[in-house]
Amino acid sequence: MAGNSFGQAFRITTAGESHGPGNVVIIDGVPPGLPISEDDLRVDLRRRRPGQSHIVTQRDEADEPEILSGVFEGRTTGTSLAILIRNTDQRSKDYGNIATLYRPGHADYSFDAKYGFRDYRGGGRSSARETTARVAAGAVAKKLLAEEFGGKVLGYVTQVGDIRAEIVDPAAVTLEQVEKTPAGEPNIVRCPDPAAAAKMITLIEECRKQQDSIGGAAEIVATNVPAGLGEPVFDKLKADLAKALFSLPAVLGVEYGIGFGCATMRGTEHNDLFVSTGRKPNGDPRIATSTNRHGGMLGGISTGMPIVLRAAVKPTSSLPIPQPTVNQAGEAATISTKGRHDPCLLPRFIPMAEAMVALVIADHWLRWKGQCRLQAERGVQ
Amino acid sequence: MAGNSFGQAFRITTAGESHGPGNVVIIDGVPPGLPISEDDLRVDLRRRRPGQSHIVTQRDEADEPEILSGVFEGRTTGTSLAILIRNTDQRSKDYGNIATLYRPGHADYSFDAKYGFRDYRGGGRSSARETTARVAAGAVAKKLLAEEFGGKVLGYVTQVGDIRAEIVDPAAVTLEQVEKTPAGEPNIVRCPDPAAAAKMITLIEECRKQQDSIGGAAEIVATNVPAGLGEPVFDKLKADLAKALFSLPAVLGVEYGIGFGCATMRGTEHNDLFVSTGRKPNGDPRIATSTNRHGGMLGGISTGMPIVLRAAVKPTSSLPIPQPTVNQAGEAATISTKGRHDPCLLPRFIPMAEAMVALVIADHWLRWKGQCRLQAERGVQ
Amino acid sequence: MAGNSFGQAFRITTAGESHGPGNVVIIDGVPPGLPISEDDLRVDLRRRRPGQSHIVTQRDEADEPEILSGVFEGRTTGTSLAILIRNTDQRSKDYGNIATLYRPGHADYSFDAKYGFRDYRGGGRSSARETTARVAAGAVAKKLLAEEFGGKVLGYVTQVGDIRAEIVDPAAVTLEQVEKTPAGEPNIVRCPDPAAAAKMITLIEECRKQQDSIGGAAEIVATNVPAGLGEPVFDKLKADLAKALFSLPAVLGVEYGIGFGCATMRGTEHNDLFVSTGRKPNGDPRIATSTNRHGGMLGGISTGMPIVLRAAVKPTSSLPIPQPTVNQAGEAATISTKGRHDPCLLPRFIPMAEAMVALVIADHWLRWKGQCRLQAERGVQ
Amino acid sequence: MAGNSFGQAFRITTAGESHGPGNVVIIDGVPPGLPISEDDLRVDLRRRRPGQSHIVTQRDEADEPEILSGVFEGRTTGTSLAILIRNTDQRSKDYGNIATLYRPGHADYSFDAKYGFRDYRGGGRSSARETTARVAAGAVAKKLLAEEFGGKVLGYVTQVGDIRAEIVDPAAVTLEQVEKTPAGEPNIVRCPDPAAAAKMITLIEECRKQQDSIGGAAEIVATNVPAGLGEPVFDKLKADLAKALFSLPAVLGVEYGIGFGCATMRGTEHNDLFVSTGRKPNGDPRIATSTNRHGGMLGGISTGMPIVLRAAVKPTSSLPIPQPTVNQAGEAATISTKGRHDPCLLPRFIPMAEAMVALVIADHWLRWKGQCRLQAERGVQ
Repeated sequence: MAGNSFGQAFRITTAGESHGPGNVVIIDGVPPGLPISEDDLRVDLRRRRPGQSHIVTQRDEADEPEILSGVFEGRTTGTSLAILIRNTDQRSKDYGNIATLYRPGHADYSFDAKYGFRDYRGGGRSSARETTARVAAGAVAKKLLAEEFGGKVLGYVTQVGDIRAEIVDPAAVTLEQVEKTPAGEPNIVRCPDPAAAAKMITLIEECRKQQDSIGGAAEIVATNVPAGLGEPVFDKLKADLAKALFSLPAVLGVEYGIGFGCATMRGTEHNDLFVSTGRKPNGDPRIATSTNRHGGMLGGISTGMPIVLRAAVKPTSSLPIPQPTVNQAGEAATISTKGRHDPCLLPRFIPMAEAMVALVIADHWLRWKGQCRLQAERGVQ
Repeated sequence: MAGNSFGQAFRITTAGESHGPGNVVIIDGVPPGLPISEDDLRVDLRRRRPGQSHIVTQRDEADEPEILSGVFEGRTTGTSLAILIRNTDQRSKDYGNIATLYRPGHADYSFDAKYGFRDYRGGGRSSARETTARVAAGAVAKKLLAEEFGGKVLGYVTQVGDIRAEIVDPAAVTLEQVEKTPAGEPNIVRCPDPAAAAKMITLIEECRKQQDSIGGAAEIVATNVPAGLGEPVFDKLKADLAKALFSLPAVLGVEYGIGFGCATMRGTEHNDLFVSTGRKPNGDPRIATSTNRHGGMLGGISTGMPIVLRAAVKPTSSLPIPQPTVNQAGEAATISTKGRHDPCLLPRFIPMAEAMVALVIADHWLRWKGQCRLQAERGVQ
Repeated sequence: MAGNSFGQAFRITTAGESHGPGNVVIIDGVPPGLPISEDDLRVDLRRRRPGQSHIVTQRDEADEPEILSGVFEGRTTGTSLAILIRNTDQRSKDYGNIATLYRPGHADYSFDAKYGFRDYRGGGRSSARETTARVAAGAVAKKLLAEEFGGKVLGYVTQVGDIRAEIVDPAAVTLEQVEKTPAGEPNIVRCPDPAAAAKMITLIEECRKQQDSIGGAAEIVATNVPAGLGEPVFDKLKADLAKALFSLPAVLGVEYGIGFGCATMRGTEHNDLFVSTGRKPNGDPRIATSTNRHGGMLGGISTGMPIVLRAAVKPTSSLPIPQPTVNQAGEAATISTKGRHDPCLLPRFIPMAEAMVALVIADHWLRWKGQCRLQAERGVQ
Repeated sequence: MAGNSFGQAFRITTAGESHGPGNVVIIDGVPPGLPISEDDLRVDLRRRRPGQSHIVTQRDEADEPEILSGVFEGRTTGTSLAILIRNTDQRSKDYGNIATLYRPGHADYSFDAKYGFRDYRGGGRSSARETTARVAAGAVAKKLLAEEFGGKVLGYVTQVGDIRAEIVDPAAVTLEQVEKTPAGEPNIVRCPDPAAAAKMITLIEECRKQQDSIGGAAEIVATNVPAGLGEPVFDKLKADLAKALFSLPAVLGVEYGIGFGCATMRGTEHNDLFVSTGRKPNGDPRIATSTNRHGGMLGGISTGMPIVLRAAVKPTSSLPIPQPTVNQAGEAATISTKGRHDPCLLPRFIPMAEAMVALVIADHWLRWKGQCRLQAERGVQ
């Protein structure tokens, strides 16, 4: 069984390669009646788009989505929704080198080992180009969360190399802060701490000049998510969110809430305490925790507190400077990846990570409604 | 859709609660002809068993497995294999308190929000007791890996609180080192660095005396895994392994290889370089990397290098000392969880984590064989 | 991927063999709060039980169910529900013969071809004994249908050999008519047409005396099912119902509505015409068809009309009289299956078929609620 | 959970409507290295194409496939394979009528009940136009069967109204006979019995003149399928084949082998007897049955004998003559479906049914290889 589908009730299936005709996603399970147009898809596709600033890859793709099915008169019909995003800038070039050499840090060797051969043009299916399909689908999921319970998913860069952003309250960060500088310019690095953002940009530029790349980390926050999402014992919300983020290229670590910091804590320091914060319209008590070290999930089920996740993203593997490697025959060789690469993956990682988180939450929301409709309805109050 | 199944080709489905009659697992997809007996299951069940030492919970369970189906004359038949492990020590006690109060750090509130009510006896389905079923199934998976390609999965404790083990080479740690001290005594904390192990035990004892608990971290290593496992683009091996570990209770972070350390690295520091290390019997070159910052997976597909994962485990939430909380009505209350709890989850976490990693590798091995038989066969050489 | 799970949102996974310790089913996705006890399971298990009359197999099994999990204080909790039914009458006997010979009409040869060997005791996993697990799970599904929309599933025998029952209105047949004769005696053949029933019994007795067996057909009717169930384009309700029935042993044909009779009809004769039959409490028109050749489904989606299915069941393959065959080495041999077999499978087929139909409808109901909650709610009015 | 995916290991997901931009299929799990081009897809797309003869619908569609991914230098890569078939002849017309009226025999009412509204243009997703995607995917599956074990799937029309073809040996029918008349002309009705074919054409022409339609039946035969395919106990080969055929529009009945004819038979008449027919190259005995009433499957697992299935197909529901119906408000109305419809669905049903059967066999072949590689390899000898 191959692995190009994700989700159960809100399920996406994708296809497409870096240098093929395009990328396509079929979303199955979208509730009927959701207003969706190509414009809704363009917002995040543009945030993901190559060429959007001087600190990302200069490949030039319009990333123009075409809805092939599942929408009628501006609303989803409930049948499968397909979106096609054609590739336009697959520059003709000589791939002879990459065809037989194994680029360090890339999936070239893994693909050869797995399938016996590979589409070597631009990395083929292992290229991050496939994430266009995820981002388009994520836009539909985001719309669903917003419509059904006012849910919101927002990501931002917290670290590039040694530069760390200071974020006082993850749930208070706004899209405006992520996308714009205080001066109203595009915030090209997507870090909402302006001082850190400026330093990050300088560091990325420096790495690029040195023909090198740099790693980093991002935080993704989901707010207004009702308590009750997540399926014991294997499809816990934390488990599916982690899978979602780890399924993205270059992610080497994921944590939520206090994360790895829990290892040095005692139970008395770590436990978040439950408090009551009033009543819902239906009279149910509103229950919260006074702190959020648990990152919005207990027992793998959402608690109603903000869901806070962090992912570590490795430095881009493609480097212009020559690196030693071997070819398919096992002979020593040297490779330098010319071409158009991101010196730091983080700025464009944000919409990809948001999409994956939104897809998981949409899926679990529908799964919950199917099994426990009454509870799901109460949860939204 | 609920979430009590895990895996695709090697698929387990579990049921059972802390204080119900028992836990059961059905494994579907086991290849025919694998030698399996109840004895094979007992090894890891004993490593997981409560009451195995003075630093774990003193609940007394025999954890005796009964194979209900799928094995004939000592070998698996290829049909579904069911294992039942009855609960025996569900001490009768008054649960009245827990029934209406929300224990901090536990899933009580989440379950109420999700399902409207809950089986409150010992945490019901949210208790770690359900992992008996995983560990039993993991033993079958381990057997499969060993038989089909000599694969091995081993975990150990690397951190308890501030005490960190020094591990020179994760792939060189042995089961002997994990289970026995240099003096041949049981290594009750399952840390293969003897000096660190002694300090960890002291720290755990101290926490228990203070009616407190302590967090930690573990490393799980899979060796002899052929290059080629993992399914682009969503069911990457790293994605499914992360989901597997995050599906376990108390896990707040997972990383592989250099993990979160990648955030501060440059590409030139981070990339592992491919080298040739000789020839396989069939003449194919043996390709490896000279370092293993990538943790055995590139593009989410195994590279043949050791797979190295780490998980952060929070301090036990159940604490004997009184903690403030609220009840179902939202009223303030105080709770102290008397009873039999682990002051540190790490020692018993090891067999659970190994089981989950083994299940994922077994699943991906069968998935690979189904789609790419020739490559899978070559991979094992 | 093996195939021991059925359903998506209401999903069962089974294990067990004819002569192993027992059969077990895990039901995942049961909504919380459904009242269930072992008594609820016993009703249909008794209708399926061997030894219930002189025209079925005389194997003596109590078929006593034990609920292992998922029920707390008499109600389902929403977590996985496991049921164990132990085998008690696996008579010790010499299987040497069956172990190497291929019984005509049985799966012995197929299993050997598939798995390389087989559990030959009583047919192992290919024995109809595995349907105990289905029937137990079906009882839970029936309860769900009844609670959520007053749905009902009832089957009955329509044909044994050349004897055909006359059924005026499938939707009007009652459980009473199926289970009792007009005189109040057990209706051991489960045909609601008393005259036909008597002839069927005589025919079955005659076949048994001749050491032969006889085929037949059954009709299963689901009433009070709301319009809207079924998932285009592959998981149409008719497709999943057909799969459900064909997954039962001995079924060689399935049709719904006019079935194979449609082949000779013209469109003008075949189309059922829509009519309005009043208003629902919410003001929506009640729409029906004046005839029901379409068997309650159009476009694979329920129309609100009774769902009417028929299945053809072959004569029991196990025969006491000697039949020629071959052994595993391909050598000619003779076999006569002594033992305890049904001379006609139909009477005990009824609860099995009802269970499968109920499972499909429960699954589709939950799938529908997850995606289209508003429509599903309206549908029940 | 919606239902637009089919299969497990060889899995297709489709999207598209009658009057939208086009239909798309993503095939996941195709083994790497399979030679595939758009030409391979065109063969069956042309057999399915509207406008191919005067006895089918006159809608004019080129049905030109574009492979979007998964093929590199003429061979499948093992990654997901997407195919797009654009609609070209969606004649602009006034749908106002259909938008609010319920066409008898169609899914209009079912879709409204399910989703709350529908894309009414040409039936939207309920139109048989979606089967273009199935047929394209089926062509890939057929290629796989041919390459891996010389498997072949062929269908033909056996009945139109009262005209029944005489087929001596289903396994001996050739594609040539199905597609060409003895005179070398196109066999537009796809019945390999020339005498019956001529009468069928006359009958279809007559129905069309009367503004009526006619039902029929088809037989699909899979040959050279190794013994061992099919997954107990739910994903039996017969169960998945039946689901596949019932998922097609207009199918009201499916049977295999002797089918409904079994109901009147005794065990002694019905059982096919095993015989030995020689040795395989590896020395294993070749085992067959002397007759094939079992239709190539026992216990739901293939026996190596030809797999023989039959499907009943209802007369086209769209009729030019006026029929009474109701509108969405429940008011009486009259409808006559002008436009371009098949007076008999059978000729174009053949490639659809073949595709579905090929998809199931490809899926089960890969599933078998994953779990029981050794047996699967032996099975092909």
